[in-house]
Formats: sequence, C-alpha cells, structure tokens
Amino acid sequence: MPPTSPIAVDRSGDAAMGPDRQAPIERYQAVRRHSLALCDGLGAEDLCVQSMPDASPVKWHLGHVSWFFEAVVLLPHAPGRRPYDERYLRLFNSYYEALGPRHPRPQRGLLTRPTLAEVLAYRQHVDQAMVAFMQSCDAGTWALAWPLIELGLHHEQQHQELMRTDLLHAFSCNPLLPPWVQGAPPGPGRVADPGPAWQRLEEGLVTIGADGRGFHFDNESPRHRVWLQGFEIATRLVSCGDFLAFIEDGGYRRPGLWLSDGWATVQAQGWQHPPYWLAPDDARAPAEHWQVFGLHGVQPLDRHAPVSQLSFYEAAAYAEWAGARLPTEFEWEAASASAACHDLHGQVWQWTRSAYHPYPGFKPLSGAVGEYNGKFMVGQLVLRGSSLATPAGHARHTYRNFFPPAARWQFSGLRLARDLPGASGGPAA
Amino acid sequence: MPPTSPIAVDRSGDAAMGPDRQAPIERYQAVRRHSLALCDGLGAEDLCVQSMPDASPVKWHLGHVSWFFEAVVLLPHAPGRRPYDERYLRLFNSYYEALGPRHPRPQRGLLTRPTLAEVLAYRQHVDQAMVAFMQSCDAGTWALAWPLIELGLHHEQQHQELMRTDLLHAFSCNPLLPPWVQGAPPGPGRVADPGPAWQRLEEGLVTIGADGRGFHFDNESPRHRVWLQGFEIATRLVSCGDFLAFIEDGGYRRPGLWLSDGWATVQAQGWQHPPYWLAPDDARAPAEHWQVFGLHGVQPLDRHAPVSQLSFYEAAAYAEWAGARLPTEFEWEAASASAACHDLHGQVWQWTRSAYHPYPGFKPLSGAVGEYNGKFMVGQLVLRGSSLATPAGHARHTYRNFFPPAARWQFSGLRLARDLPGASGGPAA
Amino acid sequence: MPPTSPIAVDRSGDAAMGPDRQAPIERYQAVRRHSLALCDGLGAEDLCVQSMPDASPVKWHLGHVSWFFEAVVLLPHAPGRRPYDERYLRLFNSYYEALGPRHPRPQRGLLTRPTLAEVLAYRQHVDQAMVAFMQSCDAGTWALAWPLIELGLHHEQQHQELMRTDLLHAFSCNPLLPPWVQGAPPGPGRVADPGPAWQRLEEGLVTIGADGRGFHFDNESPRHRVWLQGFEIATRLVSCGDFLAFIEDGGYRRPGLWLSDGWATVQAQGWQHPPYWLAPDDARAPAEHWQVFGLHGVQPLDRHAPVSQLSFYEAAAYAEWAGARLPTEFEWEAASASAACHDLHGQVWQWTRSAYHPYPGFKPLSGAVGEYNGKFMVGQLVLRGSSLATPAGHARHTYRNFFPPAARWQFSGLRLARDLPGASGGPAA
Amino acid sequence: MPPTSPIAVDRSGDAAMGPDRQAPIERYQAVRRHSLALCDGLGAEDLCVQSMPDASPVKWHLGHVSWFFEAVVLLPHAPGRRPYDERYLRLFNSYYEALGPRHPRPQRGLLTRPTLAEVLAYRQHVDQAMVAFMQSCDAGTWALAWPLIELGLHHEQQHQELMRTDLLHAFSCNPLLPPWVQGAPPGPGRVADPGPAWQRLEEGLVTIGADGRGFHFDNESPRHRVWLQGFEIATRLVSCGDFLAFIEDGGYRRPGLWLSDGWATVQAQGWQHPPYWLAPDDARAPAEHWQVFGLHGVQPLDRHAPVSQLSFYEAAAYAEWAGARLPTEFEWEAASASAACHDLHGQVWQWTRSAYHPYPGFKPLSGAVGEYNGKFMVGQLVLRGSSLATPAGHARHTYRNFFPPAARWQFSGLRLARDLPGASGGPAA
Repeated sequence: MPPTSPIAVDRSGDAAMGPDRQAPIERYQAVRRHSLALCDGLGAEDLCVQSMPDASPVKWHLGHVSWFFEAVVLLPHAPGRRPYDERYLRLFNSYYEALGPRHPRPQRGLLTRPTLAEVLAYRQHVDQAMVAFMQSCDAGTWALAWPLIELGLHHEQQHQELMRTDLLHAFSCNPLLPPWVQGAPPGPGRVADPGPAWQRLEEGLVTIGADGRGFHFDNESPRHRVWLQGFEIATRLVSCGDFLAFIEDGGYRRPGLWLSDGWATVQAQGWQHPPYWLAPDDARAPAEHWQVFGLHGVQPLDRHAPVSQLSFYEAAAYAEWAGARLPTEFEWEAASASAACHDLHGQVWQWTRSAYHPYPGFKPLSGAVGEYNGKFMVGQLVLRGSSLATPAGHARHTYRNFFPPAARWQFSGLRLARDLPGASGGPAA
Repeated sequence: MPPTSPIAVDRSGDAAMGPDRQAPIERYQAVRRHSLALCDGLGAEDLCVQSMPDASPVKWHLGHVSWFFEAVVLLPHAPGRRPYDERYLRLFNSYYEALGPRHPRPQRGLLTRPTLAEVLAYRQHVDQAMVAFMQSCDAGTWALAWPLIELGLHHEQQHQELMRTDLLHAFSCNPLLPPWVQGAPPGPGRVADPGPAWQRLEEGLVTIGADGRGFHFDNESPRHRVWLQGFEIATRLVSCGDFLAFIEDGGYRRPGLWLSDGWATVQAQGWQHPPYWLAPDDARAPAEHWQVFGLHGVQPLDRHAPVSQLSFYEAAAYAEWAGARLPTEFEWEAASASAACHDLHGQVWQWTRSAYHPYPGFKPLSGAVGEYNGKFMVGQLVLRGSSLATPAGHARHTYRNFFPPAARWQFSGLRLARDLPGASGGPAA
Repeated sequence: MPPTSPIAVDRSGDAAMGPDRQAPIERYQAVRRHSLALCDGLGAEDLCVQSMPDASPVKWHLGHVSWFFEAVVLLPHAPGRRPYDERYLRLFNSYYEALGPRHPRPQRGLLTRPTLAEVLAYRQHVDQAMVAFMQSCDAGTWALAWPLIELGLHHEQQHQELMRTDLLHAFSCNPLLPPWVQGAPPGPGRVADPGPAWQRLEEGLVTIGADGRGFHFDNESPRHRVWLQGFEIATRLVSCGDFLAFIEDGGYRRPGLWLSDGWATVQAQGWQHPPYWLAPDDARAPAEHWQVFGLHGVQPLDRHAPVSQLSFYEAAAYAEWAGARLPTEFEWEAASASAACHDLHGQVWQWTRSAYHPYPGFKPLSGAVGEYNGKFMVGQLVLRGSSLATPAGHARHTYRNFFPPAARWQFSGLRLARDLPGASGGPAA
Repeated sequence: MPPTSPIAVDRSGDAAMGPDRQAPIERYQAVRRHSLALCDGLGAEDLCVQSMPDASPVKWHLGHVSWFFEAVVLLPHAPGRRPYDERYLRLFNSYYEALGPRHPRPQRGLLTRPTLAEVLAYRQHVDQAMVAFMQSCDAGTWALAWPLIELGLHHEQQHQELMRTDLLHAFSCNPLLPPWVQGAPPGPGRVADPGPAWQRLEEGLVTIGADGRGFHFDNESPRHRVWLQGFEIATRLVSCGDFLAFIEDGGYRRPGLWLSDGWATVQAQGWQHPPYWLAPDDARAPAEHWQVFGLHGVQPLDRHAPVSQLSFYEAAAYAEWAGARLPTEFEWEAASASAACHDLHGQVWQWTRSAYHPYPGFKPLSGAVGEYNGKFMVGQLVLRGSSLATPAGHARHTYRNFFPPAARWQFSGLRLARDLPGASGGPAA
C-alpha cells in the first residue's frame, strides 16, 4: 500500500492490488451472500421489527451495510456515480456525523417503507456497481478503495452478528417465544470439565495489539507494551450450571457481590436471572425445570453450556461470588497464546475488566471512517473472543468488542481470572 | 329481544331474530370484508408496525376484532367450542380485565409472530364458526348472542377507523412520508363559505341521548333532559385557511390563548402547527408553500378543507383566538337537528367542551363487555360527528367519541360556538 | 361598584367604599396575620422545603401572596410606586404569563435566598404600603382597587390552606414523620352514624352558582339553571372505618372497581391504601394496628374520622365498591341547602363526578387576574365543601375547588350519591 | 500497626499508638472544627437544601460524617455504647449496605427534621464520646480503632470538599446567584504563561500507587508497575482564556470533537459553555462580557484562571480541539514527580483518560468500610491532583478522585498531554 493511502490499517492486501482482482471480488460476494442467507426462514415482518433503541431491524442492517459501500466507496471513488436514492443516504446512515443527517435510531422500526423488496433491490444495485467498480477501476483508485472495501466487509460481518442478536431479542419479547431455527438444537458448545482449571502467567512485559499482518480495526493498534502482574486465568468458560449455583446461592439478592451501579440496575430492572432464562414458573412456557430461550426457541437449560446474554454487572458479580475476578483485556490477550485455554472463540464473548479506551498512541482512521471506533471510547467495557454468532473468518485474538455494562442481548459470558497468592504487594513491598 | 336479555341496548334488531337470519349474516360478512379491504395496497411490514403506545398495528386490529367474536360470542355461547389458539386469547385482548391477562399495549408492534398469514387464517376460522353459529343456534341462544354480535360489528367498525388513523400516524413518522393511496386525492371535503354563519338556539330543556330505535353504545344512554342556555353554533367547520390565519397571527406563541395544560404541551412538544402540516422549509419535502400529509401523501394545503388532526388544546386555543368557544356535546347534539349545520358527519370529528363522563343514571353493559366504555370516563373529552375514516353506517347524532386532550392523530377538527350577547347573567340577574 | 370596574365579581363591597375604610383594613391585617400564625412552631428549614413539583415551600407562599398585592394592586394603582425588588417580581410570580417570566415551579425549594428574614421584611414592606394606600387613595382608585384587594385576600386564604397541605406532604416524606402540632389531637371530626343515611332530591331545574351577594371567584358564575334527575345523597362523609372495609375487601387489587386511568395509577405507583395511612407492618412506626399520619404526627386510625388525602380515583373506586357513585357538583350544591347533610364544610373536601369546566357564559376577570381560574379548566375534577385546613370565612356552598384526579395531598374525601331506583330510563321511556 | 490490624492501609500511625494520644485527638478535633467553620455565613435554609440527586445538603454531610464515627468506630469498639438515636443510623448512612437500610439519596433535601440544631447536638455528642474513647481505650482497641478513626477523618475531609461543591451548585440554581463569600475574590489562581509548555517523559516502567509511608485509601494500592510509552504533558492547566477560544471556535457545535456519549449529552442538555459561565446576554446578570459564577458570586471571567466545573466530555473535546489528549492517570502520577509541572494541586482536579478501575491485586478493606471505594469501580473516570476546595493536608500525588463523565459541579479542569512524534508504531514497528 502506498504511503499516500488514507487508512493504513492493512499491509497484507498488497497481493490483491495486482491485475487479478478475482479473489477480492469473490470474497466480497461471499460476505454479501451470507447476510441474505441469515434471513432464511424469516418473513418481512420479522425483518422490519425493532425491539429497543439499542437494536436495529434486520432490514435496516441490510440497507445500512450496503449504504456503507455506496457512501464510503462508490460515491467518493467511482467517477460520475450518483446516489441510488438520495433519501437512503439519510435513512441508512448509522452514526457518521461527517456523512450528513441521520434517521433517529429509536425509530428505525417504523421504516415499513422502503419495503424489504426495495431494500433487496438496493443491495443488488450496490453489488452490481461494486463488482463493476472492482473489476474496472485503475490501480491508483484500487489502492485507495480496497482498504475501504475490506473495512466494509468486516463492517458487514459485524452487522451479521447484530442481525442475529437484535432479532433474537425481538423474539425474546414476543410472549410466544418463537424459534428462529426449526428443529432440535445441535449439541451445544459444551464446557468440558466441571471445575475450572487455571493457567498461570508470570509477571512481565507483553506486547498487545495487532501485528499488522492481516486486517484489523484501528482500535487494535498501535501495538504496544504492557506490564502484567502475574495471574491465573481459567481454561474454560463459566457454564450455565456454574451460574445456576450463583442464583441458588442468592446471587441476585446480595448487594455485597455487586458493583454499585450493578446493584442499582438489579433493583431497578428486577433482574433475577439471565434475560433469556425461564424460571420453572414462567407463564410463557411452564415447566418443572429451568429453561433457556435461544435460536431454537425454548429448550431445557444445559448445565454444560456456557452461560450467555450476561451483562458486565452480572459477570462481575459472579466472579466476586466465585472468589475470583474478570481478566483484563491484556491478560486475556496474553493468555490467548496458551493452548491450555479452551473456547476462546466461537461460543460467547467474554467480558473483561477493562474499559474500552484508546491504546497509547491511538490514531483513528482519517476521513469519515474515523468515526468508526474512536468516538465510542468511554462508558463501555471490552469483550474478547467471539461468539457462536460471529461469522467465520471475523474473529481474532486482538479483536476488541465493546458494550455498555448493562447490555445483555449479546452472546456474552465470562472466563474467570485471579491474582497469584501474595501478589498484592508492590515491587518495593 | 326478550326482557331477560342482559344488554338491552338495541330494540331494532327484532326483525333479525326471526327464522330468517340471512340479513344479519350478510351484514356480518360485509363488515368483516371491509376490514380486509382496508389493507389493499399494504404489505406485511405496514400491517405489523406500531408507531406509539396509543396506536396499534393493523394486524393486531385484525386479530383483536376476531378475538372479540371468539371470546364474547363463540366461547360463551357456542356449545363445545374450544379456543382456536389459547395464546391468542391473551395476545388479542385489548383491555378486558375480566377476560384474563393481556399483552402489554406498547409492545404490540413486536408481534411479528403470529404472522399476517396466521392472523388471516384466524379471521377465516372465526368467520366460518360465526356463520355456522348464526345459522344454526336456537332461538334462545340467538336472543342472547345477537346483541353481542351487533356490538362486535360496531366494535369492528371502530377499529376500522383506528386502522386508518394508526397506520397513517406510522407513515407520518417515516421521513419518506409515503402515500397510502396512490394517485391524486379526490376533491377534498370543502368548507363552502369563507366566513362562518351562525345558527341560533334558544334556551330550554332538550332531550339528549339515544332514543332506542337503533343500535347505540351504552355511553349514549340513558336518554335524559339537559337545560341549555341560549347559544349560537357555526354552520360550518373551521377550515385550514382559518387555522393558517391563527398560525400567522402567532397563535402557537401566545400563552394567553391556551389552557394551562395546553400551553405546557405546546412548549414541551415544540408544537408550531398541526402535526401533519409541513411548513415551507420542511426538509422532508421542501416547497414554497404549506403542505399537508395525508392518505395521498404530501399535498398542497387546501385552504377550504377542514382542519384536521388537531388536539383539544389546539381546538380550544383557536376558538379563543376567534372570539368564540367550543360547543358542549349537548349543544352539538341539540344543534344537529338543524338543517342549517353542514358537515356534521363525514369530514372530521369535532371536539366539544364536554368531559367524557357518564350520563345521569348510566349503567354499563353487564358481563365482560361492561368494560367497553364506562371505565374510560375520566380525563378525556367528547368529540361529536364522524370523519372521512368512519365506516359507512357507523355514525349517528348521539355518538360520543372520546380522546385525551393532547391526542392528535385522529381526523379531529372543530366547529365554533358562542354565547348569546348578554347571556352571562343568571336567571335572577 | 361603578359599572366601569374591570372586575364585577362583587356587589357587596359597596359598604366598604365609604369614607370609613377601617373595616377593610382590619380585614386585610387579620388575613395577613393568619399566614404568619400558621408558621408557629416551624423553623426556617421547614419553611423552605419543597417535596414535589405540585407543592411549594411555605416561604414561597408567604412571598407569593405578598407579590400578588404588590404586582396587582400597588404597582398598577399606587402612583409612583417602585418594585421592592425587581427580582422578586419574577421569583414570586406563580403562573401569570401576563405579568412576566417566572421562576420554574419545581425549583422553588432551591430558593434558600431570599432568606426567611428577607421574605418577612418584604411582607412587612408590602403591608405598610398597602395600609397606607388603603388609607389614602382617592375614591376612584379605591373603587378599582378594592375588588383586587379582596381577591388578594381570598387568594391568600387559598394559599393558607396550601401552606398546610404542602408542608404536611413534606413531613410525610420524612421517615421521622414529625408532628407539626405538638400534643394529642383534639377529638377528630367524627362521622356520627355508622351507616349512611340518604337524602332524596327530586328531579327538576335548579339554580347553580354564586348569587352575587358576597365575594365569589369568577369560576362560580354566571348563575345559571341546570336540570337534575332525581337522586339521593349521603348525609354523612365516608369514614376511615368505611374505607378500611374497602381495603380489607381487596379494593386496591380489583381492577373492576377502578376507572382505567385509576387502575393504571394504582399499579404504577403501588398504591395499597391512602397515602398517609401506615399499615401495621410499616417500618417507620411499627404497631399492631393501622395508623394515620397527620398534623399531630402518627396517631391510631380513628374509624369514625372522615377518610382524607384520597385521590379522585380512590374516591370513585370506593363509591363503585359501595354500590353508589360520586355526586356531581350540581347535585352537591343543590343538596347543600338541605339541613340533613352533615359535614358539608370543615372536615374534608368532597370529590365530585364533575370535570372542572366553565359554566355556560363564563367570562374570566379582565386583566392579568383573568388567568386566575379559567386557564385550568381541563383535566381536573371539582371538589366541593371545605376542609379542616380551610381558613375561617373562606368556605361557601358555591365554591369550586379543583385538582387533577391523581392528586392526594389535600384533605380530600368523599360523600356518596346514588340514582333513584328505576331512574335509568329517559323521559320517553 | 500490628499485623493483626484488619486494615493495613497505614503504617505511619504507629507513633500515635503510644501512651500519648494527644496528637491524634488534636488532629481529630481540628478536622471536625473545620467542617463547622465551612458553615460560617450560611443559614439553616442554605444548609438544608439539595439541588440534585448527586448532591447532598450540608446538614446531611454534617450528620453523615458524625454517623461514620458512631457506626464504624464507637458502636463496634466502645463497650456498652448505645446509638444516640436509632433513626439517625438510617438517615445518615450513605451507601453502606452492610450497615443497614438507608434513606434514599434524592430525598435528603426533605429532611427539615432533624433540625440543624439537632444535628449539631449530634455532632457534639459524637465528639465528646470520641474524645473520651480515644483518651481511655486500651492499646488493643486503639490498634483496631485508630485506622478507622484516621479513615473517618479523611472521609470527613472528602465531605468538606463536597459541602463546598454541593452548596455552590444549589446557589448556581438560584436565579439570584448569591455570593457565598462576601467581598471581592482574592487574586485567583493564575495560570502563569499564555501558551502551554511541555514536559517530556521517556518510555519505561514506572511504579504507581501509594508507597505506604502515610495514609492512603485502599484504591491507591497495591503499588505496582506500569509500562508507559513516551509522552509529553503540559506544565500548566488549561485556562479560561484557552477554553473561551474553544467556545468561540464553535467547540460546542462540532460533533467531530466529541466522544459519542458527550455529543449526545451536549445536545440533550443544550450545553453551550461551562455550567457556571454566564454569556454576555444572560438575563440573570446582564453584562457586556463573559462572567463566571463562584464562591464570590458573579465575577468577570478571568482569562488567566484555570477553567473549572468541566465534565470529562468537555475536557476531552477541548483536548481534541487543541490537537492533544488527556493524560492517563499513570502518566499524571509519573509526571507529578517533575518540578516543571505547575498547579498539580490546589486549583482544579484534572480529568484523566483513565477509567476508575481496580489496580492489579486490589483488595478492598475488610468489614463495612470495604464498601468505601471498590464498589464504584465502573462507569467513572479518574481525576488527579486536588482543588481549591480540598482541605489542607488531604491531597497527595497518588490520590484517585473519580466522577462520572457528565459530572460538572466539581472544581474540575484539565491539563493536556500528547504522544511523542512518531510514537504510534509498536515496538516492532
């Protein structure tokens, strides 16, 4: 990538910049197809609904990720390109102040028009234009555009995960608790051993952040050094059975286990268990045992499955109850190199004890995409790993996901950590 | 109808109670068909959306009016009848505490399931069962059931009007301001003369309420006497041109014209004109003149059309500005016998200066339908007449519509009244 | 009073307009002294506190009623008069838009400055200026000013009642539930007989409203005729014992007894009994029996005392439970002429089933005082009678007090009414 | 301090544990006297008011800090001690769940009783008991109690600062904007040089946290190592003149300068300048120039004074506008050793770019005082230094103050930092 590139987030795409652009185009098409595949079995009503301000309708996600390619790639870089529909520039802008006014987020569910068919036509239009552009633009344009295209593909993958979690939340608000996917669930991701085993890491300097050998978001850089005290991290995730013990021990009724904001939330919201759990007396699906709502509808609670849909507050309270703590994001990243840690990816995102703040020397991308990550760097906590809803190829050890501490509609759980015995003294004792 | 009938609200249905029930069945079918006809040109997304807690999705309306026949007629009166789906009894109950728990009103828009196809299948099932029941039930059952069926038909007509106003509100929240009906609007209902003419009524005792010669709701009875002071009432509705003069005279900026609650609402909500009006500088559809959103999308403001979508507060402020006042519902009803008054029906509901309270001697219907009207008798104002969205055959001079004073998503306007000169002294002066 | 007087609300003051103005001055001084007497035993902290937006600090009341005399009488009518402090004109204006900007009502409790001493000095200044003005103004000025002065005195008496109820509410929010008045309460106003006796009134035309032979507010006029159906009214108030039976019969848990807005409020606010009642398990003052908080602190519930601090919703639900209803304000006024009705005054205000709306031909006072009553005529219900907190000489049968239906910090209770048997048919039956 | 002490936060008190306890007693008395001295010139009304849920009345502060000594020292450690008033245990508990139920924080302003005189009597009682206890307890008890007493003194000093900021906020809500302190302000703390000078620190391991040679709070430990990248820090605070340039450059209108939550707050709250600044057109005190409200009332804006009462959002936006950033709390602490940095203490607290999270190996104090700090460790940002309202002897370089990012009623400003040129690459670059 030439030094004039506005966003130097990728140094591995050089191969794609040669005369043969077939691989990038196929990758583009594969990612875009996957968004539509996620809609299998859903109707227009399902795709239009918005259950809370923090969630968006799937149809809006489908339009927004297309808008990203149109607004960030095609309009600035494809000569003579006109907007498909001026009104979509506003409707499908999420939060980019630099790209103009936006439709208010809490009202996205009111957009019955454009219809699903019209949004799919918009997608098709953008895809045709993108492929034509990728096939024909000159090398200089390609060098500028490809980093933005690759960013757009990762952006679309992020929204693919949100399409899953946002609609699942809407289904969870429906008293019928409908299954999204028909049929029995596959064997759930199981937490192998009943008790946690601990992996020990000694104190020392570690290097944190993306190494620049593949795509990464700006928030994963710069790569930098962090001093870690010695600690231990659990080799497995906290399971539903673990969490049930916390509940049965009065976990949701003991203020001493909770951070102050967490306890205030427990009381204000009446939390008594994770949001998709159904107590035995739940009127929506009475049973003699605990059940859990998920993609396959209501299923018996599996004690060996990882606990999910937890807020940070619940994760931290559980850790306190268990005599442990959450790892920092740096501890997690350092431990991720160890083969001993299971289920780092593909089950649930893991809350860390780290605020989502910039790395030392952090520089946002230039241009409108500079709003991608940096401006959210207060009031949120970092989650590491990835979940069963994360698209294939999107996860990596340096990935920093982030949500506010009360959020609990993601596939979010935890992995415990703890200090080494006698570690509380400083270097000078 | 035998005197043992639990709800003696109708004395005209006797003809239908003979051996030939063809007319009632055809009436049932006609009303039910009209609900579906209202959905022409709308998609499943349109029918599922809910734009505010006070409005409901059209799909919910379609299910609810069918639920009424199932819960109030079929289950109590058709032997051996089982619920179509136990869950629908809860989902489609609106506010009848006596008929069990309900789905929370503000979350009706989250019901992507049951799907539109499932709700239409439910309607079809109810229709088949109702027609079979109406054809075959014995005379004693018919005598009990027909008043409930007739109530159900008028209930469905009420919801037909709400289907129009609720979805139009959702469209009004969509920045695209889509037209519901394609093509140019028919000539609007025009207010004939530019200035109001006044019809005078002298003081005296008048008789108010339904006379029992046709269907009426319980809130229109008992028929009773009211003493009216002499007054004058406008022979025509207030027009958009009239209301524009109020706006241009600073009507929305002069606290002295408003009731205290109204002025607080103006300031809190930032009201500057009726909700579906677009000022010339409105970014959604810039123009050089005022425009109005309605069933045909955005159209130029027609100065001769009746002003609509007003709250009571706006209607009362306009009347104050115009040196007049709103009529009471009794004045309106007394004046409705006069041929001089135009547009009593079919254009806009007309706010009155009467709280929606029980008539002297009011008795609600017995049974669950007793919750139909009486329990809303505080905090609302009466509107009289009917609107362009009222189904044919549903309007009458004794009809009492009611909404809270801040509501402004109905086809609601006003007609002026005023005291006779020198009338402010009492009888003993 | 000459016909040029701007506010013709009083025809009895003529005697006061003679050369001897001693009686009016003494009346002025007596009313003003009573406001200060109400503060006996209270400290500066008590007088400064505001417990909710609907209430005001006593110190603010003390300043506001003085402001009324300054802004409405002295500044317009006393030549060369300058404001005592320009800032007080804004601080102590309650809601008169015509008299300039106001300090926001919910923030009156923040006014630690001006101090109590400064407000008392302001009172003293106004009193000296008022007495001097009353002694020396010419006859023409007196004719204009006296009606405003008399209005100001009645205005101050209204605020004297609010000083009691507002501060009592603040004390009720203090977990110490401090007594305002030391010592045991005097024998409470007792409801004589255990069961209600009924007074019957036949149908007919009655005359309602002030007859002009003494002071009245504008909202009590014009005097006009109203047709009443025959009805019965209880000769006594509903007692605490009566209301306890309602509670013990599940009154607060049965939606069928409540108006829809009332039931929503019961659920949202968690109402289980009147606000100043303490259930036996109340942690603030544990006891084996029900207790009631009041001016003398916490006292055992007296079954023979009238129930108080009820909202309209609770009054209406009680009446429904008792198989009766609330009287309209016209029924109450018509019945007030009967010697059979006890405790019309001096115990608790009595909720009526009448919205607070203008009488036919109502005209507000002219000038700024026109905002006194008329602009509140929506969203409120009328209470009739007077309470133990009403100053002597302030009550009359035509008096219309008004509060929103959820208000429950006044001395507000109820008296039952009911239709005559067989009365539900109309005249044409 | 013997190793059996439950809270090993202090190793310097050993001298006090000898037979002569005069110095600790004198220190106790001096701190306690200072709280009362802060009330000079204030009336009972001033001391009772609460202007927002985040603030408390001064009277409540006075009671609460006495409660701390009673509940944490006297009742557990003084044999046979009975509560002064059982009710005060609840009224004056702030947030210690382990010490029983509490009075709700937003309603502290309603506590007109106990009166100021009663609270002062309570203070006097506690002081007498404390001095007697300190004089007479045995050595073992002293060893347990002294750390709690010392904690209580630092706790009282924290509340001394809040007494200043909380009441100043109440005064700022009073449209009279009264001065707390009469007379002209002393020369304000001046920021010497017009432009910032930068102090450079090279990358490396630094040691952070209290060294145990004096009192510190638990949140300042354990002392531990942190790796810092090289950076520069401003030798002076940001001044009002600096901040005025930000405002005049449209700082409050440019979303690109703000974190997303900050911009949402700017829009929701209508922020246009720091909260105690008065624009020239401010109706409360019109002037031709900017003014600032403070302890001496309204004064002309001093461009050389440090800007204060900033939220984190405003501090971060200013830093972005200035092409710099906020320092982390570790950078601040490392730089505090440098003589080049001015005004580290005594002017304004300085927002850092660090979330208030536990240090590695953090252990809260044992017992009820364990709730002192740890449970607030989410959702807040660290401020370093101290302010003009911080009592003498309370500040230190390792001190961690913390507030939510929107808080702006403290004496809170900022000091800039920036990365070294070319520092954004990682070690392997």
